[in-house]
Amino acid sequence: MPKKSLPLAKVYALIEPGPVVLLTTAASGRSNVMAMSWHSMLEFEPPLIGCVVSDRNHSYSLLKKSRECVINIPTADIAEKVVGCGNTTGVRTDKFEKFGLTRRPAAVVRAPLIEECYANLECRIADTSMVSKYAFFVLEVVGAWLDPKAKHPRTIHHLGYGDFMVAGETIKLRSKMR
Amino acid sequence: MPKKSLPLAKVYALIEPGPVVLLTTAASGRSNVMAMSWHSMLEFEPPLIGCVVSDRNHSYSLLKKSRECVINIPTADIAEKVVGCGNTTGVRTDKFEKFGLTRRPAAVVRAPLIEECYANLECRIADTSMVSKYAFFVLEVVGAWLDPKAKHPRTIHHLGYGDFMVAGETIKLRSKMR
Repeated sequence: MPKKSLPLAKVYALIEPGPVVLLTTAASGRSNVMAMSWHSMLEFEPPLIGCVVSDRNHSYSLLKKSRECVINIPTADIAEKVVGCGNTTGVRTDKFEKFGLTRRPAAVVRAPLIEECYANLECRIADTSMVSKYAFFVLEVVGAWLDPKAKHPRTIHHLGYGDFMVAGETIKLRSKMR
Repeated sequence: MPKKSLPLAKVYALIEPGPVVLLTTAASGRSNVMAMSWHSMLEFEPPLIGCVVSDRNHSYSLLKKSRECVINIPTADIAEKVVGCGNTTGVRTDKFEKFGLTRRPAAVVRAPLIEECYANLECRIADTSMVSKYAFFVLEVVGAWLDPKAKHPRTIHHLGYGDFMVAGETIKLRSKMR
């Protein structure tokens, strides 16, 4: 499924509903993937995303070193792979191989895109001033890719300890909220 | 529906899935409510939540002045009220009256709880160092209330411009993720 470039002004709509995402990083010839749920939009355009990557995660050092990453958004059909990534450390394991996730080259950053995810956001670190206190990185999205066939993606949302909510119906309301 | 006190260690599971929330504030004899989707957990316990409250919102000044607020989590049955709050400014309007939202006194803070929401998190500002740059407030949750009957709350998640995803089925996976 070839993905299409998504205008950066539309990125917020992918993150704002709060899905579990897969963060990919690469540095020193190694790459890794971690599951992440603690993230928030901070600005519409250029899109800024704040996210917590703990220094207990292997990805922390790859992110600090490379100052780049990709936020990949999975759907329920690969929920088992996502949970596998969340349960495993990448220190000694290639999680892409172990869980059958396909690396694709990104356009702008060195971290890989995950083919099986319906959306991929290429990011560069914009601000590390909240890292020492909260492990909170501010990322700027510099490129975005979307599967054009994904109309109502069944994203997964973490409820804690192995319970996940799967995105249900979409309702339309007369909102002026962007 | 009388709510029960929720242990603070369980608060993250309400915020992490990314629902639209209603933020209530009170200062100088006035109270307000705004819809908010840009938030993230920052710490499990004591629970810290980071959230964006723009200085274009009337709630910004009430929050700055009182240094307290309540995060109320609504479900799809009051989605119209939530959108109404998001479309209206509280400068000249009492949004509680206009949209039929019931104020209840909080235990610890002066901002009101919203009766019609299934969960209420009483918060105090913990850190304003990211406010000038990102309008990003760090809140500490100091009290939490949950409707004990809300087993699978149909939270709403903003997809942009009047589209909302309603929480669907819950799946269980063997996750070690907290």
